Amino acid sequence: MNKQQNILIIGAGLCGSLLALRLGQRGYNVSVYEMRPDLRKVDISAGRSINLAFSDRGNKAMKLVGIEDKVKALCIPMNGRMIHDKEGHTFLSNYSGRDHEYINSISRGGLNALLLDEAEKHKNVSIYFNKKCKSVDFKKTTALFKDYETKSEFIEDADVIIATDGAGSAMRKSYYLAKKFLFSFSQDYLTHGYKELSILPTKTGDYKTYKNALHIWPRGRFMLIALPNLDGSFTVTLFLSYNEGAYNFNNLTTPEIVSEFFQKEFPDALQLMPNLIEDFFNNPTAALGTVKCSPWHYKGNTLLMGDSAHAIVPFYGQGMNASFEDVVEFDAVLDQGLENWEAVFKTYEATRKRDTDAIADLAIDNFHEMKDHVANPIFQKKRKLEMALEENFPDEYSSKYSLVTFNEDINYHEAMTRGRAQDKAILNMIADRDISSTFDMTKEELKIILEKVKTETQEILEEGKIIGLKNC
Amino acid sequence: MNKQQNILIIGAGLCGSLLALRLGQRGYNVSVYEMRPDLRKVDISAGRSINLAFSDRGNKAMKLVGIEDKVKALCIPMNGRMIHDKEGHTFLSNYSGRDHEYINSISRGGLNALLLDEAEKHKNVSIYFNKKCKSVDFKKTTALFKDYETKSEFIEDADVIIATDGAGSAMRKSYYLAKKFLFSFSQDYLTHGYKELSILPTKTGDYKTYKNALHIWPRGRFMLIALPNLDGSFTVTLFLSYNEGAYNFNNLTTPEIVSEFFQKEFPDALQLMPNLIEDFFNNPTAALGTVKCSPWHYKGNTLLMGDSAHAIVPFYGQGMNASFEDVVEFDAVLDQGLENWEAVFKTYEATRKRDTDAIADLAIDNFHEMKDHVANPIFQKKRKLEMALEENFPDEYSSKYSLVTFNEDINYHEAMTRGRAQDKAILNMIADRDISSTFDMTKEELKIILEKVKTETQEILEEGKIIGLKNC
Repeated sequence: MNKQQNILIIGAGLCGSLLALRLGQRGYNVSVYEMRPDLRKVDISAGRSINLAFSDRGNKAMKLVGIEDKVKALCIPMNGRMIHDKEGHTFLSNYSGRDHEYINSISRGGLNALLLDEAEKHKNVSIYFNKKCKSVDFKKTTALFKDYETKSEFIEDADVIIATDGAGSAMRKSYYLAKKFLFSFSQDYLTHGYKELSILPTKTGDYKTYKNALHIWPRGRFMLIALPNLDGSFTVTLFLSYNEGAYNFNNLTTPEIVSEFFQKEFPDALQLMPNLIEDFFNNPTAALGTVKCSPWHYKGNTLLMGDSAHAIVPFYGQGMNASFEDVVEFDAVLDQGLENWEAVFKTYEATRKRDTDAIADLAIDNFHEMKDHVANPIFQKKRKLEMALEENFPDEYSSKYSLVTFNEDINYHEAMTRGRAQDKAILNMIADRDISSTFDMTKEELKIILEKVKTETQEILEEGKIIGLKNC
Repeated sequence: MNKQQNILIIGAGLCGSLLALRLGQRGYNVSVYEMRPDLRKVDISAGRSINLAFSDRGNKAMKLVGIEDKVKALCIPMNGRMIHDKEGHTFLSNYSGRDHEYINSISRGGLNALLLDEAEKHKNVSIYFNKKCKSVDFKKTTALFKDYETKSEFIEDADVIIATDGAGSAMRKSYYLAKKFLFSFSQDYLTHGYKELSILPTKTGDYKTYKNALHIWPRGRFMLIALPNLDGSFTVTLFLSYNEGAYNFNNLTTPEIVSEFFQKEFPDALQLMPNLIEDFFNNPTAALGTVKCSPWHYKGNTLLMGDSAHAIVPFYGQGMNASFEDVVEFDAVLDQGLENWEAVFKTYEATRKRDTDAIADLAIDNFHEMKDHVANPIFQKKRKLEMALEENFPDEYSSKYSLVTFNEDINYHEAMTRGRAQDKAILNMIADRDISSTFDMTKEELKIILEKVKTETQEILEEGKIIGLKNC
């Protein structure tokens, strides 16, 4: 395909700026239009997803564009989940039994700024800010923008338009409203919303609690989590129902009731958050939704990528990683030398859709796991066993969490299928008392369990394949 | 609640006209606005769903409004599926082992006309035609209409608005576009579309093939079906992929290729359809979609009902029956004497949503069953066994099909859960050769199998309940 072609990217968020960088490296003429101001010049953090979990799939993309080391400097490793109970007791549950497997907390703004800087180094890449996409004419391959500075509207024509304009994508809305093709689409909201709060650094700039973990206060129907920032603070997020339960976002309306709620449910966190009330009433409450759709592309003209194609809830820490992986997968399809953009878009979607559907479902599962199951003894037993298996047989066992998070060469769908089967196998074995306790288990005893888990998993996977008639 | 209140119903299709009739009977002031002309005065059949399957859930609604006998006169009983293979061999697979359990073919137009007539007998019910709803302001409880006769637009104010305006609902679109509350919504299209064709009566007005069956020509990736009409004709529907396989809607573009396709795949049907080519090119190809959404209501102001809330694919013959059952369930909630409309809408949706989600999923399953599995020997063995069980133990066994279709007092969700577990139990037993052949089985032998099926089903159901941790 002709590299002189003009590619228009809508949105210069994490996915759009990475895509611009990669397509710039490949030599395309790239124009990016972003509705917000340049975040490198204006402070536009608005109390929403200040930091994010960054892991191996995201890192694979950073390697692709050659900025792995620069990104590493922005990362704070988190080796596991630090669980806080109501009495303030804590225990650390590692993400993996292998030392080199951990996730990272990273600043959204810092990473986005880096990607923009890198993209703009290419003279064939131009980025325009304060230009809001209002709609896309996907038959003509044109996009209508409003310039927030001049207040005027203008139309941009391109050879190809790729929309990376997030969960509220204007192009996806144009697909839906135009009714020019059969567009399957879903938006699903959880009954819970979220609000960002903070634990500020000590006066000397230190972390007030353990730095290298993702902190969780699981309370069954709701939870609090905290991720560290480079400046010594933590960004804290409260996940809570809008209108169910004794305390919910609809009735947490006064400082007194908010304090009461935290005092009762998260007393140790409250101690670290003298600024709670201010944060609580200054920061917005936001919704948690999953978006799926299909097709992502219209012929060879337009393509949805990143959150615009597959927005997911944040509970697997995979939202950004999945969007970065989109660019890796798209890049691999470009390497195939297909005859035209339509073939590229089709090939990309044919395998990628299955994987982004999988991570969307896994993220919903993990919502329940984090707020509830991590505090369950059976679940804890399972995690301990998995850690022991990973530690003792690093080349033979990976938990579902590891498959999803640390095995970037296994696709999400495969990770989900195998991971779920393993979970079922282990939980069945625990329920049947085939596994009593992992304390003081010898390596030989663990080996026997490993083989049993493998056999059981295989059986479950094979039963799954016979489904055929079973659902009818 | 005050019966002097004005209820505005959008859409006078099957659900809207039944709802108007029932609310009229209850004494409310009801105004119905329908975008199409009055189908009792103008012939508006457009080659789309001329007849429908009518069964026990729908009939329960007819009993509620006291028109069971009038509806019966419009019905043609269909006792089972008549399967046609490529060589023109046929065999009948009954819907139930109990003689009084069968479904009916009914004319959409005839039934709708009856419901309109009955509704209009109430002087507190007014029906207006040629008035197209463009949008609903659900905060103000007003609806904007376009009058197709005068070409003018007007706004109607009401105490309550209930939208029964079908899969393309204007009110649902207003919910989606207004973004005033968290509206979960999905539209999912199948890769297959459908086209209606016909088998005309003989010159003497007789049926050209067996009258009392739903005819199916299952071909794995596509199928043809036919339902009888009172005038001796059959309405035939071709379900076929838009663009996959050797023959599809995108490449069936000439009379020659259409004839070739039917000659090859449906030779016995083709013989009965000298009018095939004319039908094929005159009638539209339509899409098959599932719509789910939530919430259906906005406070006590507005409510979605029928296809506008839950459009489903036609393969379980339950679309109309589910919409009629909506009215029965809504009526039962009205009987509870709740304090206001918001409480009524909430209570109604709280149980009904789970059931309409279930029938939506069952309908998708049945697509695969009809086009594919009915021709599979294992499936046929299963159906034979189920018929024998129903025949010999009429009070002890009901297949999933019976639970869904003939057990109007078991809700869809329960029917799905129990039915799927039974299917799994029986198919497992057949796979494990626990059941060799039902030929010449004694009642005692059947009884043993029945008990086994019951035990297995119970185990599967209980395993399902432990899911808890298993999906995480």
